[in-house]
Amino acid sequence: MIELPLNKAYRFLEPGPVVLVSTALDGRANLMAMSYHMMMDDELPLIGCSLGPWNHSYRAFRDTGECVLAVPGADLVQTVVDIGNCSGADVDKFAAFGLTALPAAQVAAPLVAQCLANLECRIVDDHMADSHNFFILQAIQAWTDPERAERRLIHHNGDGTFSLDGEKLDLRDRMTRWPGYVDR
Amino acid sequence: MIELPLNKAYRFLEPGPVVLVSTALDGRANLMAMSYHMMMDDELPLIGCSLGPWNHSYRAFRDTGECVLAVPGADLVQTVVDIGNCSGADVDKFAAFGLTALPAAQVAAPLVAQCLANLECRIVDDHMADSHNFFILQAIQAWTDPERAERRLIHHNGDGTFSLDGEKLDLRDRMTRWPGYVDR
Repeated sequence: MIELPLNKAYRFLEPGPVVLVSTALDGRANLMAMSYHMMMDDELPLIGCSLGPWNHSYRAFRDTGECVLAVPGADLVQTVVDIGNCSGADVDKFAAFGLTALPAAQVAAPLVAQCLANLECRIVDDHMADSHNFFILQAIQAWTDPERAERRLIHHNGDGTFSLDGEKLDLRDRMTRWPGYVDR
Repeated sequence: MIELPLNKAYRFLEPGPVVLVSTALDGRANLMAMSYHMMMDDELPLIGCSLGPWNHSYRAFRDTGECVLAVPGADLVQTVVDIGNCSGADVDKFAAFGLTALPAAQVAAPLVAQCLANLECRIVDDHMADSHNFFILQAIQAWTDPERAERRLIHHNGDGTFSLDGEKLDLRDRMTRWPGYVDR
């Protein structure tokens, strides 16, 4: 994993992939799958997300105010389902699914070595936690693995079927109003 | 377009596609492209999204408190870019891009006939409008076109490149904890 500039981290979330939420509490790490998230600001960057008390990860997420958003490639699609299909109350998910926990720089939650990108995040707004299970995260450090060959993201169609990234189109030249896309 | 049950509408947004936001003010309809959105509740359903005063659509969106989220298929990817590349202040986007505005049932903003799905929405929470340009929408009526052959969604990678839906995997049988996916 090498450092990913924070102002480019949004490129892994804006396409709307399933992510893994890594948390740690009292030295015990856990993972959950999440697709209810959005970019809110690409520069800071800020991320909106929804998780609630029904998630075992919730207590670690709230008590520490931290998490890592790990972005899996298509090679992990079955693992993502299996992670969502059991609870951290019963299972050490890193061990059970052969995932490698790497130390993060600024949060206690570990990075996931097998993912395309890892975003270390802090909760910066939780006032809609009770009304809508909604949180705003700020990514404070980000990492990517440019060596990973499988780069297709995983999208959950909401019904237990998943779409992997397919054809990629470069339309930067068509975006004359947004010249920044070509340069940065 | 036939009616889409509201509790299935999230299936068009959870995968994280680019959507078109249709608005209307004083009899004039407009469109913008948006990928900063997320599902927040699949049953109501509730959708979080981010748009701001820099969008020409913003005034219509705020003044009416309504919009339609139209979900384009891959056949519209160049149109989506072109819609994001000009302003409704200068262009009648429906006319300019050959899109058909259909009357919605409950909002003034039109449906887009060429899209896979259309969600008629009302703003139900705007208290984070000033701080984070964040709104919660409730979909109050939804429509789909099951006849449309091109069903691949469009995902913006945030840099002017787009990924279309590729391989589709059915992992419902693996989701033993979520038997609802198999039935509904």
